[in-house]
Amino acid sequence: MAEEAAMREQAETVRRLKQEKADPDEIAKEVAKLLEMKAQLGADEGKHKFVLKTPKGTRDYSPKQMAIRERVFNAIISCFKRHGAEVIDTPVFELKETLTGKYGEDSKLIYDLKDQGGELLSLRYDLTVPFARYLAMNKITNIKRYHIAKVYRRDNPAMTRGRYREFYQCDFDIAGQFDPMIPDAECLKIVHEILSDLQLGDFLIKVNDRRILDGMFAVCGVPDPKFRSICSSVDKLDKMAWEEVRSEMVAEKELCPEAADRIGDYVKLQGGLELIEQLLQDPKLSQNKQAKEGLGDMKLLFEYLTLFGITGKIRFDLSLARGLDYYTGVIYEAVLLQQERQPGEEPLGVGSVAGGGRYDGLVGMFDPKGRRVPCVGVSIGIERIFSILEQRLEASEEKIRTTETQVLVASAQKKLLEERLKLVSELWDAGIKAEVLYKKNPKLLNQLQYCEDSGIPLVAIVGEQELKDGVVKLRVVATREEVNVSRESLVEEIRMRTSQ
Amino acid sequence: MAEEAAMREQAETVRRLKQEKADPDEIAKEVAKLLEMKAQLGADEGKHKFVLKTPKGTRDYSPKQMAIRERVFNAIISCFKRHGAEVIDTPVFELKETLTGKYGEDSKLIYDLKDQGGELLSLRYDLTVPFARYLAMNKITNIKRYHIAKVYRRDNPAMTRGRYREFYQCDFDIAGQFDPMIPDAECLKIVHEILSDLQLGDFLIKVNDRRILDGMFAVCGVPDPKFRSICSSVDKLDKMAWEEVRSEMVAEKELCPEAADRIGDYVKLQGGLELIEQLLQDPKLSQNKQAKEGLGDMKLLFEYLTLFGITGKIRFDLSLARGLDYYTGVIYEAVLLQQERQPGEEPLGVGSVAGGGRYDGLVGMFDPKGRRVPCVGVSIGIERIFSILEQRLEASEEKIRTTETQVLVASAQKKLLEERLKLVSELWDAGIKAEVLYKKNPKLLNQLQYCEDSGIPLVAIVGEQELKDGVVKLRVVATREEVNVSRESLVEEIRMRTSQ
Repeated sequence: MAEEAAMREQAETVRRLKQEKADPDEIAKEVAKLLEMKAQLGADEGKHKFVLKTPKGTRDYSPKQMAIRERVFNAIISCFKRHGAEVIDTPVFELKETLTGKYGEDSKLIYDLKDQGGELLSLRYDLTVPFARYLAMNKITNIKRYHIAKVYRRDNPAMTRGRYREFYQCDFDIAGQFDPMIPDAECLKIVHEILSDLQLGDFLIKVNDRRILDGMFAVCGVPDPKFRSICSSVDKLDKMAWEEVRSEMVAEKELCPEAADRIGDYVKLQGGLELIEQLLQDPKLSQNKQAKEGLGDMKLLFEYLTLFGITGKIRFDLSLARGLDYYTGVIYEAVLLQQERQPGEEPLGVGSVAGGGRYDGLVGMFDPKGRRVPCVGVSIGIERIFSILEQRLEASEEKIRTTETQVLVASAQKKLLEERLKLVSELWDAGIKAEVLYKKNPKLLNQLQYCEDSGIPLVAIVGEQELKDGVVKLRVVATREEVNVSRESLVEEIRMRTSQ
Repeated sequence: MAEEAAMREQAETVRRLKQEKADPDEIAKEVAKLLEMKAQLGADEGKHKFVLKTPKGTRDYSPKQMAIRERVFNAIISCFKRHGAEVIDTPVFELKETLTGKYGEDSKLIYDLKDQGGELLSLRYDLTVPFARYLAMNKITNIKRYHIAKVYRRDNPAMTRGRYREFYQCDFDIAGQFDPMIPDAECLKIVHEILSDLQLGDFLIKVNDRRILDGMFAVCGVPDPKFRSICSSVDKLDKMAWEEVRSEMVAEKELCPEAADRIGDYVKLQGGLELIEQLLQDPKLSQNKQAKEGLGDMKLLFEYLTLFGITGKIRFDLSLARGLDYYTGVIYEAVLLQQERQPGEEPLGVGSVAGGGRYDGLVGMFDPKGRRVPCVGVSIGIERIFSILEQRLEASEEKIRTTETQVLVASAQKKLLEERLKLVSELWDAGIKAEVLYKKNPKLLNQLQYCEDSGIPLVAIVGEQELKDGVVKLRVVATREEVNVSRESLVEEIRMRTSQ
């Protein structure tokens, strides 16, 4: 750059003057000039250094990605509506103190807003805490609602595997005082319906209960104050081997090795009704009040799931812990199972796509009088589902349309812009999805090519002759068939030809 | 409170001891006790002070409000799709520098995120700048897209009038190098369609052009560097009288009074094609290159709007300025007109519900090589529209449903929970929207009442006799009519009775 060369020359001048011990005023003048050049160059550099990107862990959605996203949303929303849910929305940020003390070790991942004078705010970390705040604030004791919105976590993103810092959650929750396990069973039915509907391949829903975990910790000899911390170690069993988790418990969390080993015996257990029955007979667990309650409810849950015909994909798993502090009863997590595997090989979980549980104490944390509203819910994590569907679409030959345009209004001759605008306006007013190229005199070939590219099925062509005859030439892009249609019946004809 | 009374008593003790000139040690002891009580009370206050609210300028949407919101969104989205738009999405926050230098005086209203180590981020202020960033980043030179999302402004909220700090924008934009004013005219057509469709009452779309404004400032004798600042004064004419705006120009912005008066003569002009023709003959404006270009394009725009048949609600208004820095050509703003007014009284604008314009330079600000992508777009501001529709619904007797449930599965006798769960599961699997009360033995009356309250049209009742006979008793809530339907034809019967 010329500026840099000039600056180097100026620096040389200053060096020379200093060496020659020239007039200090003269030196000062040249130094000032040098500094000015540096500042100038620095500012320029700033301009060029501008990075064109989205923030770390976030992404844009292109029209094609949006088309996939809307398919997934539609499947999820129709399931939520099928189960009679209402819908609510809450702000993207909450008062900071609303989120305080709800997420345990994960609280460090909360995004705070800058203090610009006013309230201290944080971006929502999930949709559950805002829901509980909403219930307490509006004194609602009974609601079945869904909420689909983005949440924010300053996590280490792994975007290729669908892990982002900004991501959607699709939450369905049932709040209210009801008979045990009926709403809980419906939440699992919903996960089952959605994952079946989306045809993502085989899946498994793991189920456990916080009371069973706590009872297990108690009978294994974990001291009370260590429950949450040991629980968060158990939570890592889906990513780490037992030996590693055990050493974290013993070395980092100072649990006695015997207690850890006792936990190790339990957390490898998984099964269905027969395991529940077995544990209800377990000499230690059956003596623990919490565990007994949890196991009793788990049995009831499995009875309801049997009525729903979905126990085939549900597994009671004592290693399922889930990190969040607010769960109080049943917890669950759905994982997709790896597709390609060797015969006889165990299906391997490729990641959690839904999770949830019962949180009977959360609303009470917000209520000024501590009134409890029992809640149970499920959150569908759709980013991973998007990734899978996106990859599948890439691999397939399927061409996905990103618009719904039924007809392009075109002309074969020049000077017909006004006629095209008049016709397209008529079509819009009649509710037809129509486009026109924004050129005064587009070539017919370009207009037809546009239809090919964007999948528009019909072209309505106006020309001198058609105008005289009061007709429009309707062309079917796929077959190149052309028919003259009277202006009055054009709308009806387009509707007929583009209805499924 | 007992603590407060005790504290007051203690304060009295201290006062008395001081008056009595008691032993300083004794006084000190009692003062310490008082301070401790104060601290205790303060901490308690802190605990109780937890405020159960959403952040300033934001709100939750209840299921009823969501039902209205979805109606409005559906109207807007179908219009955007009718015009062949694709859809995109971008993150809620951008790199801070992405937003820098785009909003002029309004930049102070941007929400920044706290620096938690990492990139400096800000919440998006509109959807236009993220769109331009998206185009430059992906080297897209040609797209017609919509984007519906929340934006954030640290403004003074006036929530009763639909002004929030978190609010939705519904943006439609056309990017690409096209023949003049064709996409611009389509944007106005879209505003016209949406506002007509929503039946919000009479409206007016004001139109102007940045080039006409700049030309006007030049011929009125405004010095170049003052253009943007004087323009933002003109922008206030919809809320302030000319005299006030004039004094802001002269006193605060040091414009010479003669120039201000000349501006005053222009900005009171409004009209249609005839005003454009008149200004094209204006001895001063017609000599200004920018103004002449702007007026020429304005004439073309009105010709296209005439073809669309919508000039009745469009007015060329020289006082329309719009604050944002990035506009370069035509600008527009739609206002709803007050409904009730005295005969002969001028219709009064009750607020802007849509706005937009042409911004040919914005994408180039992001492109490393400064490549320009001309853009024009419109943003529908739906919060005010929500407010109006919400108030209207409150005033009317219309009962709005917040779920779509077609049938409640009920039982008249006890001990039929399992049968209810089995039936509701069958219905869900068949795609029927169905609910069941989460009670083991709910009273039939309560089940019927639930249908009345939430607008569920049908009840499917199972009882001992029905189970024996292989039928379900289907009850129409509105008419209390009951028919026995065989289990096999139940789904079909429900579908038939609940299709519109």
